[in-house]
Amino acid sequence: MSTTTDSGLRNGVDTATLFATLDAVRQAPEAARFQFRARNRWVSGTHSRTTIDDFFGVGEERAHEAPTVHDVDHPKVLVGGDNAPTPVEYLLHALAGCLTAGLVNIAAARGIELTEVSSTVTGDIDLNGILGLDPTVRNGFEGITVGFRVAGDAPAEELAGLVERSRARSAVYDMLVNPVPVTVEVTTG
Amino acid sequence: MSTTTDSGLRNGVDTATLFATLDAVRQAPEAARFQFRARNRWVSGTHSRTTIDDFFGVGEERAHEAPTVHDVDHPKVLVGGDNAPTPVEYLLHALAGCLTAGLVNIAAARGIELTEVSSTVTGDIDLNGILGLDPTVRNGFEGITVGFRVAGDAPAEELAGLVERSRARSAVYDMLVNPVPVTVEVTTG
Repeated sequence: MSTTTDSGLRNGVDTATLFATLDAVRQAPEAARFQFRARNRWVSGTHSRTTIDDFFGVGEERAHEAPTVHDVDHPKVLVGGDNAPTPVEYLLHALAGCLTAGLVNIAAARGIELTEVSSTVTGDIDLNGILGLDPTVRNGFEGITVGFRVAGDAPAEELAGLVERSRARSAVYDMLVNPVPVTVEVTTG
Repeated sequence: MSTTTDSGLRNGVDTATLFATLDAVRQAPEAARFQFRARNRWVSGTHSRTTIDDFFGVGEERAHEAPTVHDVDHPKVLVGGDNAPTPVEYLLHALAGCLTAGLVNIAAARGIELTEVSSTVTGDIDLNGILGLDPTVRNGFEGITVGFRVAGDAPAEELAGLVERSRARSAVYDMLVNPVPVTVEVTTG
């Protein structure tokens, strides 16, 4: 592999740093242990607000360049205030962002210049589940569909292969199609 | 059940409308079929941008009061631009927002006045998975922990019970602990 001699930006990705990072983690696998966090506070009704700021990675506590604040709510037709997207829409957004970032990194590593990556992610849900009206209906989406449009300087087969490789390496995709252990703890008073 | 005679706001929830909505869906279960959507476009590198606007529900196409735009990126230590939170942080945010909205609705239905609901959601991930360096490591979070703090005019046991009931009825929690079918389609050129 002579890939670490690659340099410069491709698709906005610094491929030299990308390959150097892979080499560094290969040498020190514990650097790849990360913890991400979201801190949420209820506002009113179904409206709450999350701050995303600090995380742990590469052996130490870190923070984003700037903290960001994200509101979430239910729409009015579901007795919410519609101050922000719903939780399940943020989940679709997370999936789109994860698959897209992976796809662009993989294209850069493979020397493919992209001109467009866009996607529409849809999720179908029967609210008889979360409303407790039908015990045979699950709470979450019955299914999610991701429709990608990818354009760049490679044959259609190679462009489609980027999506497939990204899917196979996506953190969010993995957490949807495979179970994740979730622990819920409560302090009261 | 005399609950539909309840009226007024509790915790910012219009409980009369909440119970009326439940009754309406009980009468016409197909009203509960919703489709949510996220439309994403790549910006540069690992940075992309999602617009959330239209959805389908209660038998017709609808839209939020206003469309919203949400950026997503990777941090610099992961060769991103750190223009926004990571996809996996948005997933933690979605979980917090879903559990909190459910909890507040359930408290309102049970006649409990809340004074605080806050949570910290953390996810631990070993990036040797998504970096393709260790085939025994999964791509997603190895585990997620939700720490809730709940205060209100009910005994600790009842407040903790709100969290438990919300967990049992949460769309996002369901999609993390149970598999969701995800279909990925590609158009190129």
